[in-house]
Amino acid sequence: MDAGALLDLLGNENRRRILRLISRKPCYVTEISEQLGVSPKAVIDHLRKLEEAGLVESRTDDQRRKYFHIARNVRLEVTVAPYGFGMKSAYPASPSFDLSGCQHLKISVSRSELPAEADGGATAAAPEASDASEGLTVTPAELADLAERLNELQDLARELSLAQRWVQGRIAGALDSLADAIGDEDYLHAEVLAAVEDGTTAPQEISRELDVPREVVVECLRQLRERGLLRRRAGEWQLAT
Amino acid sequence: MDAGALLDLLGNENRRRILRLISRKPCYVTEISEQLGVSPKAVIDHLRKLEEAGLVESRTDDQRRKYFHIARNVRLEVTVAPYGFGMKSAYPASPSFDLSGCQHLKISVSRSELPAEADGGATAAAPEASDASEGLTVTPAELADLAERLNELQDLARELSLAQRWVQGRIAGALDSLADAIGDEDYLHAEVLAAVEDGTTAPQEISRELDVPREVVVECLRQLRERGLLRRRAGEWQLAT
Repeated sequence: MDAGALLDLLGNENRRRILRLISRKPCYVTEISEQLGVSPKAVIDHLRKLEEAGLVESRTDDQRRKYFHIARNVRLEVTVAPYGFGMKSAYPASPSFDLSGCQHLKISVSRSELPAEADGGATAAAPEASDASEGLTVTPAELADLAERLNELQDLARELSLAQRWVQGRIAGALDSLADAIGDEDYLHAEVLAAVEDGTTAPQEISRELDVPREVVVECLRQLRERGLLRRRAGEWQLAT
Repeated sequence: MDAGALLDLLGNENRRRILRLISRKPCYVTEISEQLGVSPKAVIDHLRKLEEAGLVESRTDDQRRKYFHIARNVRLEVTVAPYGFGMKSAYPASPSFDLSGCQHLKISVSRSELPAEADGGATAAAPEASDASEGLTVTPAELADLAERLNELQDLARELSLAQRWVQGRIAGALDSLADAIGDEDYLHAEVLAAVEDGTTAPQEISRELDVPREVVVECLRQLRERGLLRRRAGEWQLAT
């Protein structure tokens, strides 16, 4: 889902309140309308927009009541900074997604697997649901393990968030240093220079990466060459040394 | 800045286009209006809202032209998932922010300092700006180092983003397992159980942490006790064992 479309949807307080409400438990229109003090007509209108975007789905129960719930797991990140405005939306990566390719990042969670899966046969003799804990399919110890696993992942998510705030501050600092070094007021020259250093050498590629029109990139490369900061070799841009 | 207020502002496409434009270089109203094909009146209105929120600032030049630029460095994260709707906004952490307290996360960047600072005297003999590279205050090698430092941090930011997508998928899986284990359709019971496992034992605290009304938490705790999953000891909730 496009980040812009997602922002358009989430830029409405009542839609956010609806999402928060139905994320706890599926609700029908009258319920939402009463809990939030919003007219049923407006609720229906918001739900329709959310449904069209695939964020929300409904299910009809035996009494023919339509219950709405959140259908998608989607994540949105927006950065507003003097050096740039960026936004992206993404679906969660699958659990088997390989993080070992990360060069700057190491992640560890001790309880990454279901204990019942990890220990295999050892816990196969787990008792059936006892009378006291109706509906339980695991032992209390396993339940505690599952809860701990969840808490650990939530801790990790918080740490990642902190790390991202840290890195955003560092990026701002690094860009300032680079812009200072080349004596530039705006950040575009610094970003183009960094893109070339990173091996992005065609104007079209740089334009895509920085989300800036190609003509602007071309003019920027020309100025950087004129100032002796970049040069062209065999049709490719590189840093002057 | 409140995440809701930020979403309200960013939930408008023309405001996003204005932010993207002025993040590259400061612009005045006519420039913005012409580049985006939006009436000056509308541009002024958008800029006023962005200024009031402190996202945008202006500076007046010698010709008395008012240039607008982005004033703040702020980060917004939104999660829309079947198990919850969450959003938070935050300012970047300072570079000296200590990440060593992270339990599940290790971060490494090789060029975290300006080489000129790191090597001190060794590079103190760096030449003044040469004729070819006017305005340069560093050597070409130092410039390449600065660019590489920036690229490394941007790589790290991408890796953190990937890791967050991964952890969001894992949290969804862990919540599903926990909800399955207690035989519940909605996620609230699972989340309350996990909060108690994590040492959050007062209804008021749980209510704050999960952003759910206190009455709902109290009713949830009551049901979990009835089902033999939680118990109360000395006024504190804990997992039944």
